[in-house]
Amino acid sequence: MSEPHSATARAHPNIAFIKYWGNANDNLRLPANASLSMNLEGLYTQTTVSWFDRPDADSLILNGQPDTGAAFRRVFNFLNLLRERLNITGSARVESFNNFPMGAGIASSASSFAALTLAAVSAAGLQLSERALSALARLGSGSASRSIPAGFVEWFTGQTHEESFAESFAPPGHWDIVDVIAVVSSEHKSVISQEGHHSANTSDLQAARVAGAPERLAICKSAILSRDFEQFAEVVERDSNLMHAVMMTSRPPLFYWLPPTLMVMEQVRRWRADGLKVCYTLDAGPNIHCICAKDDADQVRQALSALSGISEVRVAGAGGAAVLVDVND
Amino acid sequence: MSEPHSATARAHPNIAFIKYWGNANDNLRLPANASLSMNLEGLYTQTTVSWFDRPDADSLILNGQPDTGAAFRRVFNFLNLLRERLNITGSARVESFNNFPMGAGIASSASSFAALTLAAVSAAGLQLSERALSALARLGSGSASRSIPAGFVEWFTGQTHEESFAESFAPPGHWDIVDVIAVVSSEHKSVISQEGHHSANTSDLQAARVAGAPERLAICKSAILSRDFEQFAEVVERDSNLMHAVMMTSRPPLFYWLPPTLMVMEQVRRWRADGLKVCYTLDAGPNIHCICAKDDADQVRQALSALSGISEVRVAGAGGAAVLVDVND
Repeated sequence: MSEPHSATARAHPNIAFIKYWGNANDNLRLPANASLSMNLEGLYTQTTVSWFDRPDADSLILNGQPDTGAAFRRVFNFLNLLRERLNITGSARVESFNNFPMGAGIASSASSFAALTLAAVSAAGLQLSERALSALARLGSGSASRSIPAGFVEWFTGQTHEESFAESFAPPGHWDIVDVIAVVSSEHKSVISQEGHHSANTSDLQAARVAGAPERLAICKSAILSRDFEQFAEVVERDSNLMHAVMMTSRPPLFYWLPPTLMVMEQVRRWRADGLKVCYTLDAGPNIHCICAKDDADQVRQALSALSGISEVRVAGAGGAAVLVDVND
Repeated sequence: MSEPHSATARAHPNIAFIKYWGNANDNLRLPANASLSMNLEGLYTQTTVSWFDRPDADSLILNGQPDTGAAFRRVFNFLNLLRERLNITGSARVESFNNFPMGAGIASSASSFAALTLAAVSAAGLQLSERALSALARLGSGSASRSIPAGFVEWFTGQTHEESFAESFAPPGHWDIVDVIAVVSSEHKSVISQEGHHSANTSDLQAARVAGAPERLAICKSAILSRDFEQFAEVVERDSNLMHAVMMTSRPPLFYWLPPTLMVMEQVRRWRADGLKVCYTLDAGPNIHCICAKDDADQVRQALSALSGISEVRVAGAGGAAVLVDVND
């Protein structure tokens, strides 16, 4: 193996405006539809990967604790794919932490697999294009493909591994919108979204959701490029509602909303009717991402903090690309 | 006009197990899909219609109060259709009351238009088949067609006015299930369901919901006929979730759920997992209809009463057909 042996990378989580839900190809994790997202500034996963020439000595330290359970298996299932695709030999020591809590708050799989991909590839002495890194990250977690490029990002469906990557269509500074995240519950969600993706096709509604996705994506991208908040808000909420409609009509049904979730969604619609530039979007969890104009963020944050059932409110603007922090030989 | 001039009829509301949502023909109110329901015993609308030979003297007394507003217009728009179809002349005096509160609790339009149809036809001295009465009631409110026959009822889509009627497929005594209704809010709902039906086709998901309805109806009917609660529960909850998925993805979206609605749905799924024979279904409102085995009704009622956010719990078994209470000349 060529030098250097060790690399450290950081990547942001991202919030999808047009959602990824369900795969066209489970093995390659090719998504049923293309998606759009924004990276979240200030929140990140930092991951160090060290490759060394000893067999069967893979190890994972996650947020300071050795892990040999489900997270270990998921990380090394992915690194096995990388070893195979990139001809990397030897064992890996992976050390990773998030600067935000695990679990139901903000999904950490996107930032985790994006940082892991960049660190693992760089530690192996390889330099890959952003497209190639994004496609590889996808194999770990679909949405991780979107945490490789900067700012406002589109992930293409593709027909092959190489074609299914994400790329930036606007830099972080393009539009002053922020994600004000209302955290409903810190409990770890009971169905992780990977299982959820497999259930998408059990809903009678998934095909219709997927069929309409290209049009919604075009509307959303155009709204972002022209900074048209009204058009953006309508399509972002509609796309989120469509994904949750599919989830709750799957067999068995997946209900991610909790009572405060419903209350905040209703409030957000009222605040917008009252003139605030704010809309909601929800991932596979109970927390509400209130996307709003930066000028309205303080007001939205204060209003959310005053609601019962909301344990915490975080604010994040548009973040940059996954970056290398350190490379050592 | 032939004698007698006055008649009084009673009809029960009904709860749909396979839902009616959206029309194939708005003018004739031919539904997009066939539906299944159970009449609700103990709850009724009682309506007296008197025809008399004076022009322009229509009047409505609703729950003891004269009404000249929206209810008056809806009642007499319907009676104008009856006058035309049945060659009735003269003015009508309509007096109607519900033995249950108006508004968000239990929909009163089904029982109201079923009782009104039977009273108006009988007061005009006409005797019509149950099918013809059911089809006429449909013109006032789609679900009213299902409140004409007894017990467990199927409403056929039909291609013409005459073909779109409801009929009983099992008498009230066929299966000991009851509707335990958890009332979340007594506020009048902001979107009446007639407007909602028009919005159904604005959802990308309505066509898929409608396409699957015949299969769900067949499963539900078979489960009722064979008294298979497990099969019944799965399809009833799924059908309700599908209707609300369409509602919340309409443009603009219709959200009928309130925070306690979501909590009760979750509780019902847990109670069933714990062995109770109970499932939920929701109409165009926040209240939860917990359909359960009669033997489990007390336990369900007590558990619902103990939940916060539930203002009232009602219990209703399977009810009979719309009936004439009185006919006078």
